Amino acid sequence: MSENPLSLLMSPRSIAFVGASNNPLKMGTMQAVNIVNGNFKGAFYPLHPTEKTVLGHPAFAKVADLPEVPDLVIFVSPAPTVAPYLEELGKIGVKRAIVITAGFREMDEAGARREDELNAIASRYQMRFLGPNCIGIINTEISLNATVVHMQQNKGSLGLASQSGTYVTQTLGYLHKKGICFSKAISLGNEANLNICDALEYLGEDEQTRAIILYIEGIREGRRFIDIAQRVSRRKPILAQYSGGSQAGAKAGKSHTGAMAGPDVLYDGIFAQAGIIRVDTIEDLFAHGWALAKQPLPRGNRLGVITNSGGPGAAASHHAEISGFRLPTLSGNLQNKLRQLIPAHASAANPVDVTFHLDVNLIAKEIPLLLANSGEVDALILHGAMQTAFLEQAFPQVSSLHKGEPLEKLIAKYEKHSQELVADLAEALKRHGIPLVASTFFEYNDNFSAAFRQANIPVFDAPEKAARALGSLWKYANIRQRAPFAHTNGLTSQPEATAMVAAARQNGQSALDEFSAKRLLALYGLPIVPGNIASNKGQACAIATKIGYPIVAKGCSWRALHKSELGLVALDIANERELKAAFAKIAARLEQMGESPRLVIEKMVSGSRELMLGMTRFAGFGACLSFGLGGVFTEALQDITFRCAPLSLAEALEMLDGIRSYKLLGDYRGMAAVKREELARIISTVGEIALAHPEIAEIDINPLLIGADGSLTVVDALVVLENYS
Amino acid sequence: MSENPLSLLMSPRSIAFVGASNNPLKMGTMQAVNIVNGNFKGAFYPLHPTEKTVLGHPAFAKVADLPEVPDLVIFVSPAPTVAPYLEELGKIGVKRAIVITAGFREMDEAGARREDELNAIASRYQMRFLGPNCIGIINTEISLNATVVHMQQNKGSLGLASQSGTYVTQTLGYLHKKGICFSKAISLGNEANLNICDALEYLGEDEQTRAIILYIEGIREGRRFIDIAQRVSRRKPILAQYSGGSQAGAKAGKSHTGAMAGPDVLYDGIFAQAGIIRVDTIEDLFAHGWALAKQPLPRGNRLGVITNSGGPGAAASHHAEISGFRLPTLSGNLQNKLRQLIPAHASAANPVDVTFHLDVNLIAKEIPLLLANSGEVDALILHGAMQTAFLEQAFPQVSSLHKGEPLEKLIAKYEKHSQELVADLAEALKRHGIPLVASTFFEYNDNFSAAFRQANIPVFDAPEKAARALGSLWKYANIRQRAPFAHTNGLTSQPEATAMVAAARQNGQSALDEFSAKRLLALYGLPIVPGNIASNKGQACAIATKIGYPIVAKGCSWRALHKSELGLVALDIANERELKAAFAKIAARLEQMGESPRLVIEKMVSGSRELMLGMTRFAGFGACLSFGLGGVFTEALQDITFRCAPLSLAEALEMLDGIRSYKLLGDYRGMAAVKREELARIISTVGEIALAHPEIAEIDINPLLIGADGSLTVVDALVVLENYS
Repeated sequence: MSENPLSLLMSPRSIAFVGASNNPLKMGTMQAVNIVNGNFKGAFYPLHPTEKTVLGHPAFAKVADLPEVPDLVIFVSPAPTVAPYLEELGKIGVKRAIVITAGFREMDEAGARREDELNAIASRYQMRFLGPNCIGIINTEISLNATVVHMQQNKGSLGLASQSGTYVTQTLGYLHKKGICFSKAISLGNEANLNICDALEYLGEDEQTRAIILYIEGIREGRRFIDIAQRVSRRKPILAQYSGGSQAGAKAGKSHTGAMAGPDVLYDGIFAQAGIIRVDTIEDLFAHGWALAKQPLPRGNRLGVITNSGGPGAAASHHAEISGFRLPTLSGNLQNKLRQLIPAHASAANPVDVTFHLDVNLIAKEIPLLLANSGEVDALILHGAMQTAFLEQAFPQVSSLHKGEPLEKLIAKYEKHSQELVADLAEALKRHGIPLVASTFFEYNDNFSAAFRQANIPVFDAPEKAARALGSLWKYANIRQRAPFAHTNGLTSQPEATAMVAAARQNGQSALDEFSAKRLLALYGLPIVPGNIASNKGQACAIATKIGYPIVAKGCSWRALHKSELGLVALDIANERELKAAFAKIAARLEQMGESPRLVIEKMVSGSRELMLGMTRFAGFGACLSFGLGGVFTEALQDITFRCAPLSLAEALEMLDGIRSYKLLGDYRGMAAVKREELARIISTVGEIALAHPEIAEIDINPLLIGADGSLTVVDALVVLENYS
Repeated sequence: MSENPLSLLMSPRSIAFVGASNNPLKMGTMQAVNIVNGNFKGAFYPLHPTEKTVLGHPAFAKVADLPEVPDLVIFVSPAPTVAPYLEELGKIGVKRAIVITAGFREMDEAGARREDELNAIASRYQMRFLGPNCIGIINTEISLNATVVHMQQNKGSLGLASQSGTYVTQTLGYLHKKGICFSKAISLGNEANLNICDALEYLGEDEQTRAIILYIEGIREGRRFIDIAQRVSRRKPILAQYSGGSQAGAKAGKSHTGAMAGPDVLYDGIFAQAGIIRVDTIEDLFAHGWALAKQPLPRGNRLGVITNSGGPGAAASHHAEISGFRLPTLSGNLQNKLRQLIPAHASAANPVDVTFHLDVNLIAKEIPLLLANSGEVDALILHGAMQTAFLEQAFPQVSSLHKGEPLEKLIAKYEKHSQELVADLAEALKRHGIPLVASTFFEYNDNFSAAFRQANIPVFDAPEKAARALGSLWKYANIRQRAPFAHTNGLTSQPEATAMVAAARQNGQSALDEFSAKRLLALYGLPIVPGNIASNKGQACAIATKIGYPIVAKGCSWRALHKSELGLVALDIANERELKAAFAKIAARLEQMGESPRLVIEKMVSGSRELMLGMTRFAGFGACLSFGLGGVFTEALQDITFRCAPLSLAEALEMLDGIRSYKLLGDYRGMAAVKREELARIISTVGEIALAHPEIAEIDINPLLIGADGSLTVVDALVVLENYS
């Protein structure tokens, strides 16, 4: 555990601070105040050129004056002052720093150079640092809040790493109100030195952290990120929000930290591969993380919904079903038991709808317990447990008629009662291992909302949100069930393939011609359509006779990318006469283009299921694979999923289920299901070809045909070479 | 306006009330209290068998004792008491009622009979009523709250009609906190008499209502609903949440009010056709309605985002782009002006990121004004204006250092300042007609949140929500631009078609055979593939010679639905020899099936773009059309959009853009764009065929082929007859 560079940074026994003074309106002071006035037990050493004390602590004018080598130094001083101080601190042996100061790579070229300088110094002294341009860290385990905002947080179990400082600071009050508490929170800033991979690895190892949430605008070390996340996500849930994918989001992100964004659909695939649950909004990121940190995972997808009104019941059910749950019909026996509890016009079906009801015992304890004990559901949603908030609302109107106690006394009594009641419920559910999430439109003011929070039951202000959060629990239950990944050692590059690529590059080609591209793929065992190259009619006919009609003839040149449009393709050639005519026509077209008469003569294969398989290199991720619907529909439907290479067979198999049109891969309209293992092997192999041949910039196999018998054939392929794409 | 039956019901001058007493724990009393203790100026007449007064008002033991004929009667009395009272009240001339009482159709058969009885009575006395099993109404215009929950609402401009009572009651506190105020709110209950169509029409006419929101679990009068919504949505925005579409949602809804649910994708289409914006959650329904009621529509999709942090800026931008906005690069001139205001490390690009900053003037006034005045943006999102909430959080930590005023005094000063500042901003934006939505993580506690609300600027607790709400404004701006619908008078049924259908029915057929189906479509001008029926080889060859090879031969029987699987199809027949062989083979297959040797001999047409066009009758909606991707991909991709017939050409044209694969309809991979007007005419005609021939249960045209030249051909068609589907 101690190897992670963030361990010491997050749990320092002593902190030197550069940039705090006694002026409360300065950012540095506001930041330091939160360390000093919190419950942090470690030493605090302000460095200040003139002040004798800062915030009541003795200040040090020079690094040399420090009484010990601090575990950590925090900078909130002007950008040009950071490097000189860092150098001095490095010299005395300080190993960790947080550079909150802005004005580095995110600003301009001069800032970028300053950032490089920090890294050079860090490297000289084996220092590691967070930032610059971050907002600090929170470690509730040791009551350390090194951010600019006062923290009311208790010790929690939700770990955050964020590429935006806001979510570590401006949301603190918001989270406090909702009862969401951090274990650790890390603002990553420009990621000049430590980055989100280090933070994820740290949070994965951190025992206080039970669920991890990530706010992401771009990932630099993509492959490392995936490797870490795959390991961590088998033990701990990881959720992520990514907002760099749209054009606008990328622009916004870039101006912020200069992080590396990529298309939205790439990150969709990366998260799936990594075992990370993607959410769309910051609200879901916090709330679903909270639910995952606090509730057990459902053992199945049988959901019970309990509500005090049909509308919220229907809405929760609708969203739960989208999330993969189903609402089983409850047994007659169970429905009978329920009917004895609820009004005659209420519903004992699932959702159980008690309708508007003043007896909260029923909805908040008796019915959930009945369902939990029945063994008929794996998870519960409870909407509408409310008492004091409703009472407060009604009291002004009915108080004159009410001959009982005053409002305050009623509320106090109800509060105690609801706490006991919910504690009992939570205890029983824990025994059964059944997760429960609640919703109510009285999110903050009601005794039941408070009691739920206290019992670690997440409460939402809308039924749809409760259902979606439970959906993330179900997603994670499935991630835990992922097949193990057996990564191979990669493949050895074939000398013939290496030679082909080298020759093409030497020849000034931006791509291999189609025949060579398929030949290269065949060298690695991909099933290509039978065929050969012909330079004259005689050769063409000989090839055709050997492989059998019908035949396809195509002009073969690396310059001819859009062969159909150029008139270089003749399909469905039935006999020698037709072949000769087609050869003549295509050869003439080639000649017009200044190309020699070189044609691919291939078996005509058919099938109505066309796939595509591609490889593209993305900054930060290297070779990535795309797989999806091919042929004429590729562009119109854009039904494609991405992964980062290398890809184990198990990961490639997951990819097959990641496209909308996955049904085509099954037993479909009288056609046999695709050979899944073979398809996975092909996908995985293309990834390994990309790693074995870094000179290849792109591979595009389209169509990859599924035959009526489920077999696979590479019908057309393009291999683009580096520096030309 | 006065014709709408809800006008009198919503604005009564006098109310009789059945079911209130002086017991404050009874639902009826709680309900009546809200009428009596509110500011409602009308008369209140409790009917009670024994009490002399109810809630301080003289009570009447008998209907005959009432001092006048009340405009409205409200029932919260036990179910069996409602009918007798209604009868008596009908006799004296009462015309409107609200039946809040439950225990009718939603409960059991006896309840359903009770409900029918209410309708019979109403019909006898020309009465109209809401409910039963509803929760009442709210009309803030006359301070009438006839629900069970106390209302803190001010007069607002958001009109709600809801098939769940919760959203008219349990959400009142929630809405009050958010500053969202109703004009009118209507709980529809079982819709035995008045239904959502009446409510929508009423809200459309109501001058206080500027935006309409609907919570829907099922629609009974589908066609009427669409007609009303199309009219209303040209003047006023309508938003809807529908949660009956999933299996679970439908079940939940059904147990609640017995409403008619339909598949989710059907409602998607219905809402598009009706000009209704669909939202997924109750939170969005209220919030987007609020934004539409309060803010002007953007004149274009150029969005300016102003933020105090990169993360929220990126997230807002990401979601705004998904909603159809784009973030233009600001001009050099404007960026220079911005740079003079913001810190050096901040960003003057769009999003304008002022970074964490204590001067709120900048983010909440100066920068928005600069953008609004520039003419470079059509809409604004503002994230992070905050002051007192932040101060309160920081104050405990810095108060000892702060030599200024106490917190309360600071806050009061700031509150006044923020109100003035935001009022100025709102005024300027109003002049420019630029909508603004705000977000902050200090949703409830901050002076700026309060000031925004006061200035009619919606405030959200997350940047994504602000962006999505603005997205609904943009959607509505586009709905306002819809082409006018020129509904035709329908088509006259062709005698030959009528005869074909009648003969088939008489013959006991569940469907027309393929040839007849296409013949029927051709009678209404649909472009079918050339061909004819042959009973022997000679006829077949004659037909083929006439239309020219290649030819397709298909066995023709209404019993043969899956012709390919039955071996009844021969494609791509090149000559007479092949045709004769195919004829013999198919005729033999037909004979095996006990069918006569009847074959369709047709032109072989080809094209890679295959569409489908269907007609199905849905309960509540009648004839509905489905249009989308056809051929082998129909089932795998389910890329289909629905509309309700009849359909004008303008509506059919909108349908073309409603499928994911709409790109296929354009100029695509060297193929010409489809003839859009012709396609729209075909879609519209199929709708009219359905209306002209009620005996037709279903029509399925698949494929409807797009030729390389953009032409359209019906290649295969199925016409299913009523009572057999």
